[in-house]
Amino acid sequence: MIILPGPASRDLATRLALKLRAKLVPVHFKKFPDGESYLRIEGTIKGENTAIVQTTSPPQDERMMQLLLLTSAANDQNPEAITVIVPYLAYSRQDRRFLPGEALSAKMVMDALATCGVSKLITVNCHNPAALKSFPILVQDLSAIPLLAKHFKDRGYEGAVSLSMGKKGLVTALEAADILKGSSDFLPTKRHRRTGRVTIEKKPLKVESKVAIFFDDIISSGGTMMKAVAHAKRQGATRVFAACVHPLLIDNAEEKILRSGADEVVGTDTVPSSVSIVSVAPLIAKALTRQGA
Amino acid sequence: MIILPGPASRDLATRLALKLRAKLVPVHFKKFPDGESYLRIEGTIKGENTAIVQTTSPPQDERMMQLLLLTSAANDQNPEAITVIVPYLAYSRQDRRFLPGEALSAKMVMDALATCGVSKLITVNCHNPAALKSFPILVQDLSAIPLLAKHFKDRGYEGAVSLSMGKKGLVTALEAADILKGSSDFLPTKRHRRTGRVTIEKKPLKVESKVAIFFDDIISSGGTMMKAVAHAKRQGATRVFAACVHPLLIDNAEEKILRSGADEVVGTDTVPSSVSIVSVAPLIAKALTRQGA
Repeated sequence: MIILPGPASRDLATRLALKLRAKLVPVHFKKFPDGESYLRIEGTIKGENTAIVQTTSPPQDERMMQLLLLTSAANDQNPEAITVIVPYLAYSRQDRRFLPGEALSAKMVMDALATCGVSKLITVNCHNPAALKSFPILVQDLSAIPLLAKHFKDRGYEGAVSLSMGKKGLVTALEAADILKGSSDFLPTKRHRRTGRVTIEKKPLKVESKVAIFFDDIISSGGTMMKAVAHAKRQGATRVFAACVHPLLIDNAEEKILRSGADEVVGTDTVPSSVSIVSVAPLIAKALTRQGA
Repeated sequence: MIILPGPASRDLATRLALKLRAKLVPVHFKKFPDGESYLRIEGTIKGENTAIVQTTSPPQDERMMQLLLLTSAANDQNPEAITVIVPYLAYSRQDRRFLPGEALSAKMVMDALATCGVSKLITVNCHNPAALKSFPILVQDLSAIPLLAKHFKDRGYEGAVSLSMGKKGLVTALEAADILKGSSDFLPTKRHRRTGRVTIEKKPLKVESKVAIFFDDIISSGGTMMKAVAHAKRQGATRVFAACVHPLLIDNAEEKILRSGADEVVGTDTVPSSVSIVSVAPLIAKALTRQGA
């Protein structure tokens, strides 16, 4: 198997190649002064089973274009098959029409990738994986929550309380508790109909004198996480951690969460950031190996 | 015919609809807080001959994604045909491989548009139209130079000297002179092999006591235009104008060109800018009418 590192996921691609003992073919990337991207695959992949690694977190349009350019360049070399690994998949939200005339962005992206010769897409904690099943490409969605939980276990936090946001997120807390062997709970959330602002319900949590770890798919501006962390502190938790798969961390979210009482913000390398200390490479390596690649 | 205005070319689309007396179906556009684009066609285009107007000047990746989203949304309604009008066509530079492994960005864009149901693309003063002929979509490249020349003629500058940059640009000066009925000439240019910086050769120009108008396809940072304008001033031109089809005007280019002695910088609405005072709507309308749409 050949690994092609997209410009947005070079570190993850290198970790993945090491893990798989696969050959990494370098991709030269530059931007023209006017802002257009230029890509060149610096090697041959003809007849090879090829995996392209490129996340599409913000700036998502730029990274999506780079993904399409790289895939197109790869396809022109006639590889055996192309799998794209898009750990953060942009435009997966708009997957069905709520109003007539809406652009189905997820479908457009899948169609464009299929045109570029992609047969399979692997992503991590996708917003809505169920909706991606009807598209022309096989989509596999992996969960990095167990990897995050293992990270805390390895640091000696076995038995910590695994917490999540919203009733829907309870499965996330249970996934983590399965590794951490502690209890699990969730904080109910409410989204304001007009403003869209999310508030948490301050229900009692059994975290007194315990370590509490919040697990979430994504931290964007971190507003909900800040409130949750502060609440857990008030309920008597000795230490509180904020863990997420996709650390988008818009508008100083990390600093804000730390100021609200968190000991640390921890994320994965699906989105390159200052807190991306857990790598999803083992997870993706396993998925690629299982498919017999 | 139905006109769909892309978010980057709303004014041009409105002018085009007026010119053609065609129905303009509004397109609702918004950006999610994380930066993803959302588009909705606010009407029915089923069975209709549809023209989508969206330029892809910088930020080109964002605008290219919007073009693909809008085209995909239009295609989902089963129109009779989709023509896309992309007055400034990004990624048309990389149209053949100079080194193995390079991404052919022009091909990728055309393939993606074809997948979205586009049968024809109309653009204006494309970087390299000849190279676009081998792609799956019919591409028509129009020249807006006569429209720019007519603008100056209408303002009373008939007989002005039409000038262009580089020997290759001489055809541009001749196109303009055909309308302005004055003489034409060009300033030879040289591109430095390592730095890529363009210099002009200060050859004598017959512009003394005359109005001189420089015509160019594009003004980016305006470095070459500044030098050309200053040279024409020194050669005794009474007034000097800098006209271009695509006013990208990066890094205060307009101000710099004015400071070098130009009376005015004039551009078209292929790229929305402060100098986009000449509309290409009549040019595009004619092309759409001729094809029997």
